[in-house]
Amino acid sequence: MKLIDGKMVAETIKEQLKKEVIELIDKDINPHLVAILVGDDGASQTYVASKQKACQEVGILSTLYTFNSDVSEEELLNTIKFLNEDDEIHGMIVQLPLPKHINIEKVMASIAPEKDVDGFHAMNVGRMALGLPSYLPATPNGIMELIKHYKIETEGKHCVVIGRSHIVGLPMSIMMGQKNYPGNSTVTLCHSKTPDLKSVAASADILIVAIGQPEFVKADMVKEGAVVIDVGIHRIPDETKKSGFRLVGDVDFNEVSQKCSFITPVPGGVGPMTIVSLMMNTVKAASGVVY
Amino acid sequence: MKLIDGKMVAETIKEQLKKEVIELIDKDINPHLVAILVGDDGASQTYVASKQKACQEVGILSTLYTFNSDVSEEELLNTIKFLNEDDEIHGMIVQLPLPKHINIEKVMASIAPEKDVDGFHAMNVGRMALGLPSYLPATPNGIMELIKHYKIETEGKHCVVIGRSHIVGLPMSIMMGQKNYPGNSTVTLCHSKTPDLKSVAASADILIVAIGQPEFVKADMVKEGAVVIDVGIHRIPDETKKSGFRLVGDVDFNEVSQKCSFITPVPGGVGPMTIVSLMMNTVKAASGVVY
Repeated sequence: MKLIDGKMVAETIKEQLKKEVIELIDKDINPHLVAILVGDDGASQTYVASKQKACQEVGILSTLYTFNSDVSEEELLNTIKFLNEDDEIHGMIVQLPLPKHINIEKVMASIAPEKDVDGFHAMNVGRMALGLPSYLPATPNGIMELIKHYKIETEGKHCVVIGRSHIVGLPMSIMMGQKNYPGNSTVTLCHSKTPDLKSVAASADILIVAIGQPEFVKADMVKEGAVVIDVGIHRIPDETKKSGFRLVGDVDFNEVSQKCSFITPVPGGVGPMTIVSLMMNTVKAASGVVY
Repeated sequence: MKLIDGKMVAETIKEQLKKEVIELIDKDINPHLVAILVGDDGASQTYVASKQKACQEVGILSTLYTFNSDVSEEELLNTIKFLNEDDEIHGMIVQLPLPKHINIEKVMASIAPEKDVDGFHAMNVGRMALGLPSYLPATPNGIMELIKHYKIETEGKHCVVIGRSHIVGLPMSIMMGQKNYPGNSTVTLCHSKTPDLKSVAASADILIVAIGQPEFVKADMVKEGAVVIDVGIHRIPDETKKSGFRLVGDVDFNEVSQKCSFITPVPGGVGPMTIVSLMMNTVKAASGVVY
Protein backbone atom coordinates (compact mmCIF):
# COMPACT_ATOMS: atom_id res chain seq x y z
CA MET A 1 0.00 0.00 0.00
CA LYS A 2 1.29 3.41 -0.93
CA LEU A 3 0.23 6.55 0.90
CA ILE A 4 -0.76 9.47 -1.34
CA ASP A 5 0.98 12.42 0.25
CA GLY A 6 -1.19 15.42 -0.55
CA LYS A 7 0.90 17.75 1.56
CA MET A 8 4.01 16.94 -0.42
CA VAL A 9 2.27 17.19 -3.81
CA ALA A 10 0.73 20.50 -2.77
CA GLU A 11 4.16 21.85 -1.86
CA THR A 12 5.61 20.69 -5.18
CA ILE A 13 2.84 22.45 -7.09
CA LYS A 14 3.25 25.59 -5.01
CA GLU A 15 6.94 25.71 -5.93
CA GLN A 16 5.98 25.47 -9.59
CA LEU A 17 3.33 28.19 -9.18
CA LYS A 18 5.87 30.50 -7.53
CA LYS A 19 7.95 30.35 -10.71
CA GLU A 20 4.93 31.00 -12.91
CA VAL A 21 3.94 33.99 -10.79
CA ILE A 22 7.44 35.45 -11.15
CA GLU A 23 7.21 35.04 -14.91
CA LEU A 24 3.84 36.84 -14.91
CA ILE A 25 5.20 39.67 -12.78
CA ASP A 26 8.06 39.99 -15.27
CA LYS A 27 5.36 40.63 -17.85
CA ASP A 28 3.78 43.26 -15.58
CA ILE A 29 0.91 41.02 -14.57
CA ASN A 30 0.37 40.82 -10.81
CA PRO A 31 -1.93 37.85 -10.14
CA HIS A 32 -4.60 39.13 -7.77
CA LEU A 33 -7.31 37.20 -5.93
CA VAL A 34 -10.17 38.83 -4.06
CA ALA A 35 -12.04 36.94 -1.36
CA ILE A 36 -15.44 38.09 -0.18
CA LEU A 37 -16.39 37.10 3.35
CA VAL A 38 -19.82 37.77 4.80
CA GLY A 39 -20.54 37.51 8.53
CA ASP A 40 -18.38 36.18 11.32
CA ASP A 41 -18.53 32.41 10.94
CA GLY A 42 -15.32 31.08 12.53
CA ALA A 43 -14.79 28.25 10.07
CA SER A 44 -15.23 30.60 7.11
CA GLN A 45 -12.72 33.02 8.60
CA THR A 46 -10.22 30.19 9.00
CA TYR A 47 -10.70 28.99 5.41
CA VAL A 48 -10.30 32.46 3.98
CA ALA A 49 -7.20 33.06 6.10
CA SER A 50 -5.56 29.89 4.79
CA LYS A 51 -6.38 30.88 1.23
CA GLN A 52 -4.78 34.26 1.83
CA LYS A 53 -1.74 32.60 3.39
CA ALA A 54 -1.37 30.35 0.35
CA CYS A 55 -1.59 33.39 -1.92
CA GLN A 56 1.21 35.01 0.01
CA GLU A 57 3.34 31.87 -0.25
CA VAL A 58 3.14 31.71 -4.03
CA GLY A 59 3.28 35.47 -4.59
CA ILE A 60 -0.35 36.10 -5.49
CA LEU A 61 -1.76 39.40 -4.26
CA SER A 62 -4.84 38.86 -2.14
CA THR A 63 -7.48 41.27 -0.96
CA LEU A 64 -10.24 40.52 1.51
CA TYR A 65 -13.62 42.23 1.34
CA THR A 66 -15.60 41.67 4.54
CA PHE A 67 -19.26 42.42 5.10
CA ASN A 68 -21.50 42.21 8.14
CA SER A 69 -24.00 39.38 8.04
CA ASP A 70 -26.81 41.90 7.46
CA VAL A 71 -25.31 43.13 4.18
CA SER A 72 -27.97 43.45 1.49
CA GLU A 73 -27.91 41.24 -1.57
CA GLU A 74 -27.79 44.40 -3.66
CA GLU A 75 -24.65 45.68 -1.98
CA LEU A 76 -22.97 42.32 -2.48
CA LEU A 77 -23.98 42.23 -6.15
CA ASN A 78 -22.74 45.79 -6.64
CA THR A 79 -19.40 44.88 -5.12
CA ILE A 80 -19.07 41.88 -7.42
CA LYS A 81 -19.99 44.03 -10.40
CA PHE A 82 -17.31 46.52 -9.44
CA LEU A 83 -14.73 43.73 -9.05
CA ASN A 84 -15.80 42.15 -12.36
CA GLU A 85 -14.93 45.40 -14.09
CA ASP A 86 -11.54 45.87 -12.44
CA ASP A 87 -8.94 44.58 -14.90
CA GLU A 88 -6.31 44.27 -12.19
CA ILE A 89 -8.31 41.61 -10.37
CA HIS A 90 -7.97 38.17 -11.91
CA GLY A 91 -9.89 35.91 -9.56
CA MET A 92 -12.76 36.28 -7.15
CA ILE A 93 -14.24 33.92 -4.59
CA VAL A 94 -17.24 34.30 -2.32
CA GLN A 95 -16.75 32.23 0.82
CA LEU A 96 -19.78 30.06 1.54
CA PRO A 97 -22.12 29.75 3.36
CA LEU A 98 -23.91 33.07 2.89
CA PRO A 99 -26.65 34.41 5.20
CA LYS A 100 -30.11 33.09 4.40
CA HIS A 101 -31.50 36.37 3.07
CA ILE A 102 -29.01 36.24 0.21
CA ASN A 103 -29.70 34.21 -2.93
CA ILE A 104 -26.53 32.17 -3.41
CA GLU A 105 -27.37 31.20 -6.99
CA LYS A 106 -27.82 34.82 -7.96
CA VAL A 107 -24.57 35.85 -6.31
CA MET A 108 -22.61 33.01 -7.93
CA ALA A 109 -24.10 33.76 -11.36
CA SER A 110 -23.08 37.41 -11.02
CA ILE A 111 -19.35 36.62 -10.87
CA ALA A 112 -17.80 37.01 -14.32
CA PRO A 113 -17.02 33.47 -15.53
CA GLU A 114 -13.46 34.52 -16.40
CA LYS A 115 -12.88 35.50 -12.73
CA ASP A 116 -14.74 32.54 -11.19
CA VAL A 117 -11.65 30.72 -9.93
CA ASP A 118 -13.79 28.47 -7.70
CA GLY A 119 -15.24 27.01 -10.92
CA PHE A 120 -18.80 27.17 -9.52
CA HIS A 121 -20.34 29.31 -12.30
CA ALA A 122 -22.59 27.39 -14.73
CA MET A 123 -20.38 28.57 -17.59
CA ASN A 124 -17.31 26.95 -16.07
CA VAL A 125 -19.21 23.78 -15.15
CA GLY A 126 -20.45 23.57 -18.74
CA ARG A 127 -17.03 24.24 -20.22
CA MET A 128 -15.55 21.56 -17.97
CA ALA A 129 -18.21 19.07 -19.09
CA LEU A 130 -17.54 19.92 -22.76
CA GLY A 131 -13.80 19.49 -22.29
CA LEU A 132 -13.14 23.18 -23.00
CA PRO A 133 -10.58 25.22 -21.01
CA SER A 134 -12.19 26.17 -17.69
CA TYR A 135 -11.52 26.64 -14.00
CA LEU A 136 -11.89 23.20 -12.47
CA PRO A 137 -13.48 23.02 -9.03
CA ALA A 138 -10.87 22.75 -6.30
CA THR A 139 -11.40 19.28 -4.87
CA PRO A 140 -11.79 17.33 -8.14
CA ASN A 141 -8.86 19.24 -9.62
CA GLY A 142 -6.77 18.43 -6.55
CA ILE A 143 -7.62 14.74 -6.91
CA MET A 144 -6.65 14.82 -10.59
CA GLU A 145 -3.29 16.31 -9.63
CA LEU A 146 -2.72 13.57 -7.04
CA ILE A 147 -3.52 10.86 -9.60
CA LYS A 148 -1.13 12.50 -12.07
CA HIS A 149 1.64 12.87 -9.54
CA TYR A 150 1.51 9.18 -8.60
CA LYS A 151 1.06 8.16 -12.27
CA ILE A 152 -1.98 6.09 -11.35
CA GLU A 153 -3.43 4.34 -14.38
CA THR A 154 -7.03 5.38 -15.09
CA GLU A 155 -7.79 4.30 -18.68
CA GLY A 156 -10.26 1.44 -18.84
CA LYS A 157 -10.46 1.28 -15.04
CA HIS A 158 -13.77 1.22 -13.22
CA CYS A 159 -13.97 4.42 -11.22
CA VAL A 160 -16.75 4.59 -8.63
CA VAL A 161 -17.60 7.99 -7.19
CA ILE A 162 -19.72 8.03 -4.04
CA GLY A 163 -21.59 11.31 -3.58
CA ARG A 164 -23.13 13.55 -6.26
CA SER A 165 -22.49 17.05 -4.88
CA HIS A 166 -22.07 19.80 -7.47
CA ILE A 167 -18.63 20.71 -6.20
CA VAL A 168 -17.08 17.27 -5.73
CA GLY A 169 -18.84 14.08 -6.82
CA LEU A 170 -20.56 15.23 -9.99
CA PRO A 171 -17.58 17.05 -11.59
CA MET A 172 -15.27 14.24 -10.48
CA SER A 173 -17.46 11.69 -12.25
CA ILE A 174 -17.51 13.77 -15.43
CA MET A 175 -13.75 14.37 -15.44
CA MET A 176 -12.82 10.73 -14.87
CA GLY A 177 -14.85 9.69 -17.92
CA GLN A 178 -13.32 12.21 -20.32
CA LYS A 179 -10.88 11.50 -23.15
CA ASN A 180 -7.82 12.54 -21.20
CA TYR A 181 -5.35 11.48 -18.61
CA PRO A 182 -6.48 11.24 -15.83
CA GLY A 183 -9.71 9.98 -17.35
CA ASN A 184 -10.94 7.41 -19.83
CA SER A 185 -12.34 5.42 -16.89
CA THR A 186 -15.70 3.71 -16.93
CA VAL A 187 -17.40 5.82 -14.28
CA THR A 188 -20.22 4.93 -11.91
CA LEU A 189 -21.77 7.71 -9.84
CA CYS A 190 -23.44 6.51 -6.61
CA HIS A 191 -25.50 8.48 -4.10
CA SER A 192 -28.08 8.28 -1.36
CA LYS A 193 -30.52 6.42 -3.64
CA THR A 194 -28.06 3.69 -4.61
CA PRO A 195 -29.40 0.52 -2.96
CA ASP A 196 -26.36 -1.75 -3.31
CA LEU A 197 -23.62 0.73 -2.49
CA LYS A 198 -21.44 -1.91 -0.88
CA SER A 199 -21.19 -4.14 -3.92
CA VAL A 200 -20.82 -1.23 -6.34
CA ALA A 201 -17.97 0.22 -4.26
CA ALA A 202 -16.35 -3.21 -4.07
CA SER A 203 -16.26 -3.37 -7.88
CA ALA A 204 -14.16 -0.20 -8.16
CA ASP A 205 -10.56 -0.09 -9.34
CA ILE A 206 -10.57 3.56 -8.28
CA LEU A 207 -12.90 4.53 -5.44
CA ILE A 208 -13.52 8.21 -4.76
CA VAL A 209 -15.51 8.77 -1.58
CA ALA A 210 -17.31 12.04 -0.87
CA ILE A 211 -20.28 10.88 1.14
CA GLY A 212 -19.76 13.04 4.23
CA GLN A 213 -20.04 10.24 6.80
CA PRO A 214 -17.13 9.42 9.13
CA GLU A 215 -15.40 6.10 8.37
CA PHE A 216 -18.32 4.97 6.20
CA VAL A 217 -16.26 2.85 3.81
CA LYS A 218 -15.08 -0.38 5.44
CA ALA A 219 -12.72 -3.04 4.12
CA ASP A 220 -15.57 -5.16 2.71
CA MET A 221 -16.52 -2.29 0.39
CA VAL A 222 -13.08 -2.16 -1.22
CA LYS A 223 -11.54 -4.44 -3.82
CA GLU A 224 -8.06 -5.84 -3.16
CA GLY A 225 -5.56 -3.48 -4.80
CA ALA A 226 -7.98 -0.60 -5.42
CA VAL A 227 -6.97 3.07 -5.37
CA VAL A 228 -8.92 4.86 -2.62
CA ILE A 229 -9.40 8.63 -2.55
CA ASP A 230 -11.02 9.97 0.61
CA VAL A 231 -12.59 13.42 0.34
CA GLY A 232 -14.21 13.49 3.80
CA ILE A 233 -12.89 15.15 6.92
CA HIS A 234 -14.58 14.85 10.30
CA ARG A 235 -13.72 15.50 13.93
CA ILE A 236 -14.62 12.59 16.14
CA PRO A 237 -14.24 12.50 19.93
CA ASP A 238 -11.07 10.73 21.11
CA GLU A 239 -10.13 10.76 24.77
CA THR A 240 -6.60 9.59 24.06
CA LYS A 241 -5.86 12.88 22.31
CA LYS A 242 -4.97 16.08 24.12
CA SER A 243 -7.44 17.99 21.95
CA GLY A 244 -10.17 15.48 22.80
CA PHE A 245 -10.78 14.62 19.13
CA ARG A 246 -9.14 13.16 16.08
CA LEU A 247 -9.67 13.73 12.38
CA VAL A 248 -11.04 10.95 10.21
CA GLY A 249 -12.26 10.72 6.63
CA ASP A 250 -15.18 8.99 4.93
CA VAL A 251 -13.02 5.88 4.76
CA ASP A 252 -12.05 3.64 7.68
CA PHE A 253 -8.33 4.11 7.10
CA ASN A 254 -7.10 1.37 9.44
CA GLU A 255 -9.21 -1.30 7.80
CA VAL A 256 -9.06 -0.14 4.20
CA SER A 257 -5.36 0.74 4.01
CA GLN A 258 -4.56 -2.98 4.49
CA LYS A 259 -6.29 -3.80 1.24
CA CYS A 260 -5.68 -1.07 -1.30
CA SER A 261 -2.78 -0.14 -3.58
CA PHE A 262 -2.97 3.61 -2.94
CA ILE A 263 -4.86 5.61 -0.33
CA THR A 264 -5.12 9.26 0.70
CA PRO A 265 -4.75 9.79 4.45
CA VAL A 266 -6.93 12.21 6.43
CA PRO A 267 -5.57 14.73 7.15
CA GLY A 268 -2.81 15.26 4.59
CA GLY A 269 -4.42 13.68 1.52
CA VAL A 270 -7.01 15.54 -0.52
CA GLY A 271 -7.30 18.46 1.93
CA PRO A 272 -4.01 20.24 1.19
CA MET A 273 -4.74 20.03 -2.54
CA THR A 274 -7.91 22.11 -2.52
CA ILE A 275 -6.28 25.42 -1.70
CA VAL A 276 -3.47 24.73 -4.15
CA SER A 277 -6.14 24.18 -6.84
CA LEU A 278 -7.48 27.63 -6.14
CA MET A 279 -3.97 29.01 -6.55
CA MET A 280 -3.62 27.13 -9.86
CA ASN A 281 -6.88 28.64 -11.11
CA THR A 282 -5.84 32.14 -10.06
CA VAL A 283 -2.56 31.82 -11.94
CA LYS A 284 -4.50 30.50 -14.95
CA ALA A 285 -6.83 33.52 -14.70
CA ALA A 286 -3.92 35.95 -14.60
CA SER A 287 -2.26 34.16 -17.54
CA GLY A 288 -5.44 34.41 -19.62
CA VAL A 289 -5.22 30.77 -20.72
CA VAL A 290 -8.87 29.93 -20.04
CA TYR A 291 -10.82 32.86 -21.49
CA MET B 1 -42.10 -6.71 -23.65
CA LYS B 2 -43.64 -3.32 -24.23
CA LEU B 3 -42.78 -1.19 -27.23
CA ILE B 4 -42.02 2.46 -26.45
CA ASP B 5 -43.92 4.34 -29.11
CA GLY B 6 -41.97 7.53 -29.69
CA LYS B 7 -44.16 8.61 -32.56
CA MET B 8 -47.26 8.49 -30.38
CA VAL B 9 -45.59 10.28 -27.45
CA ALA B 10 -44.25 12.94 -29.80
CA GLU B 11 -47.75 13.54 -31.16
CA THR B 12 -49.16 13.80 -27.63
CA ILE B 13 -46.54 16.40 -26.68
CA LYS B 14 -47.13 18.33 -29.90
CA GLU B 15 -50.83 18.57 -29.05
CA GLN B 16 -49.92 19.97 -25.65
CA LEU B 17 -47.46 22.42 -27.21
CA LYS B 18 -50.12 23.66 -29.64
CA LYS B 19 -52.22 24.72 -26.64
CA GLU B 20 -49.28 26.43 -24.99
CA VAL B 21 -48.47 28.31 -28.19
CA ILE B 22 -52.06 29.54 -28.42
CA GLU B 23 -51.85 30.78 -24.82
CA LEU B 24 -48.63 32.62 -25.67
CA ILE B 25 -50.14 34.21 -28.76
CA ASP B 26 -53.06 35.34 -26.59
CA LYS B 27 -50.43 37.20 -24.56
CA ASP B 28 -49.01 38.72 -27.76
CA ILE B 29 -45.97 36.45 -27.75
CA ASN B 30 -45.37 34.73 -31.10
CA PRO B 31 -42.86 31.93 -30.51
CA HIS B 32 -40.26 32.26 -33.22
CA LEU B 33 -37.41 29.91 -34.13
CA VAL B 34 -34.61 30.79 -36.54
CA ALA B 35 -32.60 28.06 -38.23
CA ILE B 36 -29.27 28.83 -39.84
CA LEU B 37 -28.22 26.51 -42.64
CA VAL B 38 -24.81 26.73 -44.30
CA GLY B 39 -24.02 24.99 -47.59
CA ASP B 40 -26.07 22.45 -49.52
CA ASP B 41 -25.67 19.21 -47.60
CA GLY B 42 -28.76 17.15 -48.41
CA ALA B 43 -29.13 15.57 -44.98
CA SER B 44 -28.88 18.98 -43.29
CA GLN B 45 -31.54 20.37 -45.62
CA THR B 46 -33.83 17.47 -44.75
CA TYR B 47 -33.31 17.94 -40.99
CA VAL B 48 -33.96 21.66 -41.17
CA ALA B 49 -37.06 21.08 -43.30
CA SER B 50 -38.50 18.66 -40.73
CA LYS B 51 -37.80 21.12 -37.94
CA GLN B 52 -39.63 23.82 -39.89
CA LYS B 53 -42.52 21.45 -40.54
CA ALA B 54 -42.76 20.67 -36.82
CA CYS B 55 -42.79 24.40 -36.05
CA GLN B 56 -45.67 24.86 -38.44
CA GLU B 57 -47.59 21.99 -36.85
CA VAL B 58 -47.43 23.46 -33.36
CA GLY B 59 -47.83 27.08 -34.43
CA ILE B 60 -44.26 28.27 -33.94
CA LEU B 61 -43.07 30.84 -36.47
CA SER B 62 -39.94 29.65 -38.22
CA THR B 63 -37.44 31.52 -40.35
CA LEU B 64 -34.60 29.98 -42.31
CA TYR B 65 -31.35 31.83 -42.93
CA THR B 66 -29.30 30.12 -45.63
CA PHE B 67 -25.68 30.79 -46.52
CA ASN B 68 -23.39 29.46 -49.22
CA SER B 69 -20.71 27.12 -47.99
CA ASP B 70 -18.09 29.82 -48.57
CA VAL B 71 -19.71 32.22 -46.08
CA SER B 72 -17.11 33.82 -43.83
CA GLU B 73 -17.06 33.10 -40.11
CA GLU B 74 -17.41 36.83 -39.54
CA GLU B 75 -20.61 37.07 -41.56
CA LEU B 76 -22.06 34.13 -39.66
CA LEU B 77 -21.10 35.66 -36.32
CA ASN B 78 -22.58 39.01 -37.35
CA THR B 79 -25.85 37.33 -38.28
CA ILE B 80 -26.00 35.56 -34.94
CA LYS B 81 -25.26 38.82 -33.14
CA PHE B 82 -28.09 40.50 -35.02
CA LEU B 83 -30.46 37.64 -34.17
CA ASN B 84 -29.34 37.67 -30.50
CA GLU B 85 -30.45 41.28 -30.30
CA ASP B 86 -33.83 40.78 -31.95
CA ASP B 87 -36.39 40.48 -29.12
CA GLU B 88 -38.94 38.89 -31.40
CA ILE B 89 -36.75 35.86 -31.98
CA HIS B 90 -36.87 33.36 -29.11
CA GLY B 91 -34.79 30.46 -30.32
CA MET B 92 -31.91 29.96 -32.72
CA ILE B 93 -30.24 26.84 -34.07
CA VAL B 94 -27.25 26.42 -36.34
CA GLN B 95 -27.55 23.21 -38.31
CA LEU B 96 -24.38 21.14 -38.09
CA PRO B 97 -22.01 20.27 -39.66
CA LEU B 98 -20.44 23.59 -40.67
CA PRO B 99 -17.78 24.00 -43.38
CA LYS B 100 -14.25 23.37 -42.14
CA HIS B 101 -13.09 26.98 -42.34
CA ILE B 102 -15.60 27.93 -39.64
CA ASN B 103 -14.82 27.44 -35.96
CA ILE B 104 -17.85 25.57 -34.60
CA GLU B 105 -17.00 26.25 -30.95
CA LYS B 106 -16.79 29.97 -31.61
CA VAL B 107 -20.09 29.99 -33.49
CA MET B 108 -21.88 27.98 -30.79
CA ALA B 109 -20.48 30.18 -28.02
CA SER B 110 -21.75 33.28 -29.85
CA ILE B 111 -25.41 32.27 -29.61
CA ALA B 112 -27.01 33.98 -26.60
CA PRO B 113 -27.58 31.22 -24.00
CA GLU B 114 -31.21 32.32 -23.61
CA LYS B 115 -31.81 31.60 -27.33
CA ASP B 116 -29.74 28.41 -27.50
CA VAL B 117 -32.68 26.02 -27.83
CA ASP B 118 -30.37 23.19 -28.93
CA GLY B 119 -28.85 23.33 -25.44
CA PHE B 120 -25.31 23.12 -26.82
CA HIS B 121 -23.94 26.32 -25.23
CA ALA B 122 -21.61 25.75 -22.26
CA MET B 123 -23.92 27.87 -20.12
CA ASN B 124 -26.87 25.56 -20.78
CA VAL B 125 -24.75 22.45 -20.28
CA GLY B 126 -23.56 23.87 -16.96
CA ARG B 127 -27.04 24.87 -15.84
CA MET B 128 -28.30 21.39 -16.73
CA ALA B 129 -25.49 19.79 -14.70
CA LEU B 130 -26.26 22.06 -11.74
CA GLY B 131 -29.97 21.23 -11.93
CA LEU B 132 -30.89 24.83 -12.83
CA PRO B 133 -33.53 25.65 -15.45
CA SER B 134 -31.96 25.22 -18.89
CA TYR B 135 -32.59 24.04 -22.42
CA LEU B 136 -31.97 20.31 -22.36
CA PRO B 137 -30.33 18.81 -25.43
CA ALA B 138 -32.88 17.23 -27.75
CA THR B 139 -32.10 13.52 -27.58
CA PRO B 140 -31.63 13.18 -23.79
CA ASN B 141 -34.69 15.33 -23.21
CA GLY B 142 -36.68 13.16 -25.62
CA ILE B 143 -35.60 10.04 -23.75
CA MET B 144 -36.62 11.60 -20.42
CA GLU B 145 -40.06 12.31 -21.88
CA LEU B 146 -40.41 8.71 -23.05
CA ILE B 147 -39.46 7.40 -19.61
CA LYS B 148 -41.99 9.76 -18.02
CA HIS B 149 -44.74 8.84 -20.42
CA TYR B 150 -44.35 5.11 -19.72
CA LYS B 151 -43.89 5.77 -15.99
CA ILE B 152 -40.70 3.71 -15.98
CA GLU B 153 -39.18 3.50 -12.50
CA THR B 154 -35.68 4.99 -12.37
CA GLU B 155 -34.91 5.58 -8.67
CA GLY B 156 -32.26 3.23 -7.35
CA LYS B 157 -31.99 1.49 -10.71
CA HIS B 158 -28.66 0.88 -12.39
CA CYS B 159 -28.64 2.95 -15.57
CA VAL B 160 -25.84 2.19 -18.02
CA VAL B 161 -25.20 4.72 -20.78
CA ILE B 162 -23.04 3.57 -23.69
CA GLY B 163 -21.37 6.45 -25.51
CA ARG B 164 -20.02 9.71 -24.06
CA SER B 165 -20.88 12.24 -26.78
CA HIS B 166 -21.52 15.78 -25.60
CA ILE B 167 -25.00 15.86 -27.07
CA VAL B 168 -26.31 12.44 -26.03
CA GLY B 169 -24.34 10.15 -23.71
CA LEU B 170 -22.77 12.64 -21.34
CA PRO B 171 -25.87 14.77 -20.63
CA MET B 172 -27.98 11.60 -20.41
CA SER B 173 -25.65 10.18 -17.76
CA ILE B 174 -25.80 13.41 -15.76
CA MET B 175 -29.58 13.71 -15.95
CA MET B 176 -30.26 10.12 -14.91
CA GLY B 177 -28.21 10.59 -11.74
CA GLN B 178 -29.93 13.78 -10.61
CA LYS B 179 -32.37 14.18 -7.71
CA ASN B 180 -35.45 14.09 -9.87
CA TYR B 181 -37.81 11.87 -11.72
CA PRO B 182 -36.63 10.56 -14.16
CA GLY B 183 -33.35 10.27 -12.31
CA ASN B 184 -31.98 9.09 -8.99
CA SER B 185 -30.42 6.15 -10.82
CA THR B 186 -26.95 4.83 -10.11
CA VAL B 187 -25.36 5.73 -13.44
CA THR B 188 -22.45 4.11 -15.25
CA LEU B 189 -21.07 5.85 -18.32
CA CYS B 190 -19.27 3.52 -20.76
CA HIS B 191 -17.30 4.38 -23.89
CA SER B 192 -14.67 3.20 -26.33
CA LYS B 193 -12.16 2.65 -23.51
CA THR B 194 -14.45 0.41 -21.45
CA PRO B 195 -12.87 -3.04 -21.64
CA ASP B 196 -15.76 -5.15 -20.30
CA LEU B 197 -18.66 -3.43 -22.06
CA LYS B 198 -20.63 -6.65 -22.38
CA SER B 199 -20.77 -7.39 -18.67
CA VAL B 200 -21.37 -3.76 -17.70
CA ALA B 201 -24.27 -3.52 -20.15
CA ALA B 202 -25.66 -6.81 -18.85
CA SER B 203 -25.81 -5.36 -15.33
CA ALA B 204 -28.12 -2.51 -16.39
CA ASP B 205 -31.73 -2.15 -15.32
CA ILE B 206 -31.94 0.70 -17.82
CA LEU B 207 -29.64 0.54 -20.83
CA ILE B 208 -29.24 3.61 -23.02
CA VAL B 209 -27.25 2.92 -26.16
CA ALA B 210 -25.67 5.70 -28.21
CA ILE B 211 -22.60 3.99 -29.59
CA GLY B 212 -23.21 4.60 -33.29
CA GLN B 213 -22.72 1.00 -34.45
CA PRO B 214 -25.51 -0.93 -36.17
CA GLU B 215 -27.04 -3.72 -34.05
CA PHE B 216 -24.10 -3.64 -31.65
CA VAL B 217 -26.04 -4.67 -28.55
CA LYS B 218 -26.97 -8.35 -28.65
CA ALA B 219 -29.16 -10.36 -26.29
CA ASP B 220 -26.21 -11.49 -24.16
CA MET B 221 -25.49 -7.86 -23.28
CA VAL B 222 -28.96 -7.28 -21.82
CA LYS B 223 -30.38 -8.32 -18.47
CA GLU B 224 -33.73 -10.11 -18.45
CA GLY B 225 -36.42 -7.46 -17.92
CA ALA B 226 -34.21 -4.44 -18.62
CA VAL B 227 -35.45 -1.21 -20.20
CA VAL B 228 -33.59 -0.62 -23.47
CA ILE B 229 -33.36 2.79 -25.14
CA ASP B 230 -31.78 2.78 -28.59
CA VAL B 231 -30.44 6.11 -29.84
CA GLY B 232 -28.77 4.82 -33.01
CA ILE B 233 -30.16 4.91 -36.52
CA HIS B 234 -28.39 3.32 -39.49
CA ARG B 235 -29.24 2.34 -43.06
CA ILE B 236 -28.12 -1.17 -43.82
CA PRO B 237 -28.42 -2.88 -47.22
CA ASP B 238 -31.44 -5.19 -47.49
CA GLU B 239 -32.33 -6.76 -50.81
CA THR B 240 -35.79 -7.76 -49.63
CA LYS B 241 -36.76 -4.08 -49.44
CA LYS B 242 -37.81 -2.01 -52.40
CA SER B 243 -35.52 0.79 -51.28
CA GLY B 244 -32.62 -1.65 -51.03
CA PHE B 245 -32.03 -0.86 -47.35
CA ARG B 246 -33.61 -1.01 -43.94
CA LEU B 247 -33.19 1.12 -40.82
CA VAL B 248 -31.69 -0.41 -37.70
CA GLY B 249 -30.50 0.99 -34.38
CA ASP B 250 -27.50 0.35 -32.15
CA VAL B 251 -29.45 -2.56 -30.66
CA ASP B 252 -30.23 -5.87 -32.35
CA PHE B 253 -33.98 -5.45 -31.96
CA ASN B 254 -34.98 -9.00 -32.89
CA GLU B 255 -32.73 -10.56 -30.30
CA VAL B 256 -33.02 -8.01 -27.53
CA SER B 257 -36.76 -7.39 -27.69
CA GLN B 258 -37.31 -10.99 -26.54
CA LYS B 259 -35.58 -10.26 -23.27
CA CYS B 260 -36.40 -6.76 -22.10
CA SER B 261 -39.40 -5.14 -20.40
CA PHE B 262 -39.44 -2.00 -22.57
CA ILE B 263 -37.65 -1.17 -25.81
CA THR B 264 -37.62 1.71 -28.28
CA PRO B 265 -37.98 0.56 -31.90
CA VAL B 266 -35.91 2.04 -34.74
CA PRO B 267 -37.43 3.94 -36.45
CA GLY B 268 -40.26 5.32 -34.31
CA GLY B 269 -38.59 5.29 -30.90
CA VAL B 270 -36.16 8.01 -29.86
CA GLY B 271 -36.03 9.65 -33.30
CA PRO B 272 -39.45 11.33 -33.36
CA MET B 273 -38.77 12.79 -29.90
CA THR B 274 -35.75 14.87 -30.85
CA ILE B 275 -37.58 17.41 -32.97
CA VAL B 276 -40.36 17.63 -30.42
CA SER B 277 -37.70 18.44 -27.79
CA LEU B 278 -36.58 21.36 -29.89
CA MET B 279 -40.19 22.55 -30.05
CA MET B 280 -40.45 22.22 -26.25
CA ASN B 281 -37.32 24.33 -25.81
CA THR B 282 -38.58 26.98 -28.22
CA VAL B 283 -41.85 27.27 -26.33
CA LYS B 284 -39.86 27.47 -23.07
CA ALA B 285 -37.74 30.23 -24.61
CA ALA B 286 -40.80 32.20 -25.67
CA SER B 287 -42.37 31.72 -22.23
CA GLY B 288 -39.25 33.02 -20.49
CA VAL B 289 -39.26 30.18 -17.95
CA VAL B 290 -35.54 29.38 -18.28
CA TYR B 291 -33.82 32.77 -18.25
